[in-house]
Amino acid sequence: MPIDLNSDLGEGFGAWSMGDDASMLGIVSSANVACGFHAGDPRGLLETLRQAAARGVAVGAHVSYPDRVGFGRRPMDVTADELTADVIYQIGALQGLARAAGTRVSYVKPHGALYNTIADDARQADAVIAGVLAADPALVLMGLAGAPVLDRARRAGLSVVAEAFADRAYTPGGALVSRRDPGAVLHDPDLVAARMVRLATDGVIEAVDGSTLTLRADSICVHGDSPGAVAMAAAIRAALQDRGVAIAPFAGAGG
Amino acid sequence: MPIDLNSDLGEGFGAWSMGDDASMLGIVSSANVACGFHAGDPRGLLETLRQAAARGVAVGAHVSYPDRVGFGRRPMDVTADELTADVIYQIGALQGLARAAGTRVSYVKPHGALYNTIADDARQADAVIAGVLAADPALVLMGLAGAPVLDRARRAGLSVVAEAFADRAYTPGGALVSRRDPGAVLHDPDLVAARMVRLATDGVIEAVDGSTLTLRADSICVHGDSPGAVAMAAAIRAALQDRGVAIAPFAGAGG
Amino acid sequence: MPIDLNSDLGEGFGAWSMGDDASMLGIVSSANVACGFHAGDPRGLLETLRQAAARGVAVGAHVSYPDRVGFGRRPMDVTADELTADVIYQIGALQGLARAAGTRVSYVKPHGALYNTIADDARQADAVIAGVLAADPALVLMGLAGAPVLDRARRAGLSVVAEAFADRAYTPGGALVSRRDPGAVLHDPDLVAARMVRLATDGVIEAVDGSTLTLRADSICVHGDSPGAVAMAAAIRAALQDRGVAIAPFAGAGG
Amino acid sequence: MPIDLNSDLGEGFGAWSMGDDASMLGIVSSANVACGFHAGDPRGLLETLRQAAARGVAVGAHVSYPDRVGFGRRPMDVTADELTADVIYQIGALQGLARAAGTRVSYVKPHGALYNTIADDARQADAVIAGVLAADPALVLMGLAGAPVLDRARRAGLSVVAEAFADRAYTPGGALVSRRDPGAVLHDPDLVAARMVRLATDGVIEAVDGSTLTLRADSICVHGDSPGAVAMAAAIRAALQDRGVAIAPFAGAGG
Repeated sequence: MPIDLNSDLGEGFGAWSMGDDASMLGIVSSANVACGFHAGDPRGLLETLRQAAARGVAVGAHVSYPDRVGFGRRPMDVTADELTADVIYQIGALQGLARAAGTRVSYVKPHGALYNTIADDARQADAVIAGVLAADPALVLMGLAGAPVLDRARRAGLSVVAEAFADRAYTPGGALVSRRDPGAVLHDPDLVAARMVRLATDGVIEAVDGSTLTLRADSICVHGDSPGAVAMAAAIRAALQDRGVAIAPFAGAGG
Repeated sequence: MPIDLNSDLGEGFGAWSMGDDASMLGIVSSANVACGFHAGDPRGLLETLRQAAARGVAVGAHVSYPDRVGFGRRPMDVTADELTADVIYQIGALQGLARAAGTRVSYVKPHGALYNTIADDARQADAVIAGVLAADPALVLMGLAGAPVLDRARRAGLSVVAEAFADRAYTPGGALVSRRDPGAVLHDPDLVAARMVRLATDGVIEAVDGSTLTLRADSICVHGDSPGAVAMAAAIRAALQDRGVAIAPFAGAGG
Repeated sequence: MPIDLNSDLGEGFGAWSMGDDASMLGIVSSANVACGFHAGDPRGLLETLRQAAARGVAVGAHVSYPDRVGFGRRPMDVTADELTADVIYQIGALQGLARAAGTRVSYVKPHGALYNTIADDARQADAVIAGVLAADPALVLMGLAGAPVLDRARRAGLSVVAEAFADRAYTPGGALVSRRDPGAVLHDPDLVAARMVRLATDGVIEAVDGSTLTLRADSICVHGDSPGAVAMAAAIRAALQDRGVAIAPFAGAGG
Repeated sequence: MPIDLNSDLGEGFGAWSMGDDASMLGIVSSANVACGFHAGDPRGLLETLRQAAARGVAVGAHVSYPDRVGFGRRPMDVTADELTADVIYQIGALQGLARAAGTRVSYVKPHGALYNTIADDARQADAVIAGVLAADPALVLMGLAGAPVLDRARRAGLSVVAEAFADRAYTPGGALVSRRDPGAVLHDPDLVAARMVRLATDGVIEAVDGSTLTLRADSICVHGDSPGAVAMAAAIRAALQDRGVAIAPFAGAGG
C-alpha cells in the first residue's frame, strides 16, 4: 500500500519567504498550498503551483481564517456564513491559479487554528464542510486521523483523508499530545522515520505512555519550515521507500 | 438589437455597504462583481451573486489592483507577473463563489485605475489579457469602446465587449472627457437617457463640441452608488425599452 | 454633576462611510475614534479629529483586534504580547493624528469583541492595561460600569471611567442583557432618554425584571450609525439638559 | 567628524522574518524602523525598538505607501491628503511603540518607491514634508544626497540629513546609476568599504565613469537582508573606524 506525504507550501508573502518549497516538492506527494488568507500572494502561489505541477505533486487548498499577521494560528469566532464563504473564496482562487499552472486542486486542508478548531467544533466544522461542498463536492477533505470532523464530513457526502503527524507524540487515546506538554514534538529523524514506517506498514504507532495505538492514516504530514525539518522529511521518505512503501498521492488526488 | 446594461455591484466590505445592489439588479442585465481586491468580502459577494442568479443577471469579475483603502482608484506600477497572477486569483475566487451561488462568471471588467491604465498601457494590458486567458479563455473582456486594449485582447484570442458610459461626455475623437474638465459628467437623467437611446438605435452620440460621433457599444455602464444614480439608471432602462430596445446580456454572457 | 456622552466615530474606511460623524459631534462630549484596526483610514481619521477639535469634543482611542472585514466584532485568541503591542501601536497612531488635528487623545476605549472579552478575561484585560500604561499612563481607560476590568486597571495605576449603554437593558445584577435575549436593545427614544435622566440624576436604572439597580456611570454610550440612532442620541442629550444635567467630557478628558 | 550608518530594520511581519536585525544593531548607529505599511507588525516592531534602545541606536520612522504585498516597492499615485495622513499615522504609531520601548523617533526616512518618488516629485514630496511637520516639526527628514526633496524640506522648516548608498554606483552628476544599468550595485566589500572611507574623510566618491564626484553625506545606508550584506556592513564599519572615523548618529538623533 502506498502512502501519501503532505506538507504546507506556498507560505511566503510578497517579499517574505517561508520554508524551502523547492526541496519539499522533491519529497512529498501532496502540497497543502496557502490561499492568501494566512499566507501566499498570487504571484508566489502561481510559481509554487507550477513547480507542483512539474513534479507531479497533488495540490490541496490550505484554507485559513483571514489573519495574515497571525499566520492563521489564532482562533477566531467567525460566523458560519462568513466561514463558509471564506472557504469557497479561497478554494476558487486556488483553483483558478492551479488551472493556470496546469494542475488542479484535489483536496482541502484547513490550516492552523481553523484545523484545530474544526477537529471538535461542530458549528465551524459544518461551515467548512458546507463551503467545500458548495465549491466542489468532488474535493476531498483532509483532517486529523480520528477527529470527529472526518465523520461529519463523510456523513455530509465528502470523501475524507485521515492524516498523522510525523513529528508529534500521541496520547493512548489517539489524540495529539498538546504542545504545552513535554515531549509533544519529536526531534530525532531516525526515531520519527521508524515510527512512520511502522504506521505505514502495520497501522500502529507507539503512544506517549509506551502503549501501542492503532491509527489508520492515509497521509503523513511533514514540515519543511527549517533545514532540520526538510532533513527529517527526507529521512521519512527514504525510510518508507527502503521498506517498500511507495510515496504517492492518496486516491482521487493528483494533477 | 438588444443592448446590455452593466453596473458595479458587490462593492461593500464587511460592515460597510456601497450602493443599492438590490435595486440595480432589477435594472441591469450584467453585474460587474467585485472580487475582494478593491471591495467585496466573501460573504457579501456570495449574497450578491445569489441575487444576480435569481434575477438572471450576467456576472463579470470586476478585477482590481490590491488597494482596498484606495478602492482601486489609485494607479499602481505593478509588475506584469504580479498583475497576471492577481487577475487569475480574483477570477478564480469569484468563479468559486459564482458556482456556489448557482451562476457563472461570463466576463472580466477591470476596475477603476486598472481599467483606465490598461486602456492605453500596453504592458499592463497584456498582463491582464494573459491573466484572463490563463484563467479561462472563454471569458469575455469588457473595455472602453475604442480603447486600444480591446484590439490587443482580440488579437490575443479573447472575445471582447465594448462599453459606453451613460453619464460621461465624449470628445470628438471618441475618448471620455477628463473628469478634471468641465462638463465631463452629465447629471440630467432625461438627457442621458435620450443619448443612450440614440447610441443604441443609431450607433452615434453627440460629442462635447456638438459634433456627432459614431460609437459602437455592446454595453452601457450605469452607476448605482447614490439614489440619484439608481434613478438615472432606471430612466435609461425605461427609455430604451420604450423605444423597443431590449435589455439583455451581451452574446456569450449569462448565468 | 455633569455627565459625559460618548459615541463611536471615525468608522468609515476609504470610500466607505459609517454613521453620521458630523451630527454626532454636535451631540456627544467624547468621541471614541477608530484607530485603523477595525475601521478608519488615516485621511478620514484626520478629518474626524479636526472636527472633534473644532467642536471641543474629547477624543478616545477606540482600539480593536486587527480584523477589518469583521469590524472588530469577532473574538480572537491573541497572545498577550500581540495585544499589548497592538494597543500601543493604535494609541500612538491616533495620538499622532490628534496632534496634527490640534487635539489630543484623552482616553482609551476597547472596541467590539475586545471590549466584551476584557470585561471578564483577565489575561486579555491585563494585556490591554499594559499597553495603555506603556503608551501613556495618563490615559484613562473607559469600560463597562461594574466590569472587573475597571478594578484591574485601577489597581494597575490607570484612571478609569465607567460607562452605561443608553439603549441596552440591564440584568438585576448590573450586567447587560445578552443581545441573544429578547428585550436586550431598547428602541423608544423617550423611554431611553428618561432612563438616562434617572441614571444621571439618581444613579439608578430599572433592570429588565423591573427591579431598581444602582449603577455608577461617568459616561453614557450612544450610537450614531443610523438616522434613528442619531435622533435617539439627540433626545437623550435634550432630556438631560432639560433636567439641568450638563453634558461635558469626564474629568481629565478634553482637547 | 563622525559619520552615521543607517539600515532598514523591523521588516518582518508576523511569522515572516527579514534580515538579521540583531547583527545589524551591532553595526549601525541609526535604524530605519518599518511602521506597518510595507512591513512590521506591532509586536515585532516593539521588540526591534527595545533592542535598538538597548544598543543606543537612533530610530527613524521608515514610512511607506500602504502596500504590504508589494513591500512598498511599487509606485502609487496617491493624493496629497492621503499621503500626508498616512505619514502622520505611521510616525505616530512608531512614536508610541518607541516610547514604550524606552526610546524615541528622531527622524523620518521614506521607504522604497515612496523614497524614490519624492526625490523628484514635488507634489508627493510636499505631502510627505507636510506630514512630518504636522507630526512633529523637530523630526529630521533623511533623503538622498543631492535630491531636490532635501531643499524643499529645508525651505519648509525641517532639518534634513543627506545619505549616500554604500553599495551603489554614482553617475558623474551625483545620481544613483539605475538598477537597470550594468554596474549599478557593487558587491566587493573591500572596494565598497574603501569608497565609504574616502567619502567620509574627503567628501568625494568615484563616479561610474572614473571621474571624482564631491558628495556631502551625513549618513551612509548599508543593507542587512542577506549574510553577505551583513558582512559588507561590518566591513564598512571596521574600515571607517580603522581610519579614525567614529560611527555615531547624526546631530539631533538618538534615544
